Amino acid sequence: MSEATSERTKVRRGATRAAYDRASLLAVLDAGMVAHVGVSTDEGPVVLPMAYARTDDRLYLHGATGNALLAAAVGRDICVTVTIVDGLVVARTPFHHSMNYRSVVVRGVAAEVDDDEERRTALRLISDHVTPTWEYGRPPTEPELRRTRVLAVPLVELSGKIRSGGPTDRPEDRDAPYWGGSVPLERTWGSAVPDDGLSADVAVPPGVAAIEGRPLP
Amino acid sequence: MSEATSERTKVRRGATRAAYDRASLLAVLDAGMVAHVGVSTDEGPVVLPMAYARTDDRLYLHGATGNALLAAAVGRDICVTVTIVDGLVVARTPFHHSMNYRSVVVRGVAAEVDDDEERRTALRLISDHVTPTWEYGRPPTEPELRRTRVLAVPLVELSGKIRSGGPTDRPEDRDAPYWGGSVPLERTWGSAVPDDGLSADVAVPPGVAAIEGRPLP
Repeated sequence: MSEATSERTKVRRGATRAAYDRASLLAVLDAGMVAHVGVSTDEGPVVLPMAYARTDDRLYLHGATGNALLAAAVGRDICVTVTIVDGLVVARTPFHHSMNYRSVVVRGVAAEVDDDEERRTALRLISDHVTPTWEYGRPPTEPELRRTRVLAVPLVELSGKIRSGGPTDRPEDRDAPYWGGSVPLERTWGSAVPDDGLSADVAVPPGVAAIEGRPLP
Repeated sequence: MSEATSERTKVRRGATRAAYDRASLLAVLDAGMVAHVGVSTDEGPVVLPMAYARTDDRLYLHGATGNALLAAAVGRDICVTVTIVDGLVVARTPFHHSMNYRSVVVRGVAAEVDDDEERRTALRLISDHVTPTWEYGRPPTEPELRRTRVLAVPLVELSGKIRSGGPTDRPEDRDAPYWGGSVPLERTWGSAVPDDGLSADVAVPPGVAAIEGRPLP
């Protein structure tokens, strides 16, 4: 277990799948596309998908200043979960069916980022999380920046599970005439689709060209 | 807006992307692989990925009886969110970058399913959510069933967002020399990987053969 893991983020079930190594957890955050962000409200928990990015020690979220969930999250405990499904695991019996996946849970108090330089850095990191695009577009204006809220969660309490491979059937089931195995789920970027009316002499940005047709990690 | 949508699940931001049609929302639940389940605990919200399935009016979750999150969820408001990322949207300026996605949020009180017949039905639906596998394996034993907790959430309060297409840039940015467009994210099942030691005369189940090499919806 890493020193970065607190008592309340210890994985209680499926300990054989627990992945506590900090570098492995950060790699999952880097490979993920969206985070599912949970906030406790007076009307119960709310979980919404959001873009995100990270530095070595902080995870960033952003949204419109009018976004009710982000407003409710400021100064409160939130949970940010990133999951990548890698495949279906078919066991000899449904009780042992599973999925192969990589998942990281980050818990902590969300703080609003007020510092303009950190805000801009965070927004650029979020913009460039999947592939670099920030520097190929028009830079954001001051009004656009003011309409955007940035939250930071410390990357201190994090835990994860990584499962791979085939089913974990009982020995007596393994010898029975039932199929067991897995089916990998592959994610691939397709070809870029230029926007309607895009001038033919505007080049595809390198960050877009870099991912077209490529498998995701 | 569907009659199935309550005041608290109204989509407040990005209303142009709001998808309230019940059939569209259910189709997203059918196409998704995992749900992110949020529960408010004394130590803050917790969000974990889980398999799921649905009937016309209920969403089912399951897990080991020792699963702390499911135990905490019984009789309480929970939030179940399913998201499918369909691609990256690159605008002329980072402020309008986005993703194409389908997402559904279900909120409601989780009830433990005690009835044996409904439990078995729910477990079979969860097992067969991605592709039918239940009937090709060894049936579950009574002890296996007893070690599994099944929760149901009514499919009453649900909302969603579906975004597709290119960026929504300002008109003046559309004429500027910046690239705008989208990059689709494709999900495809690979070839089934038989478990180590699987006897060569055990056939691949039809539910597995049916998805191998196929794109996901």
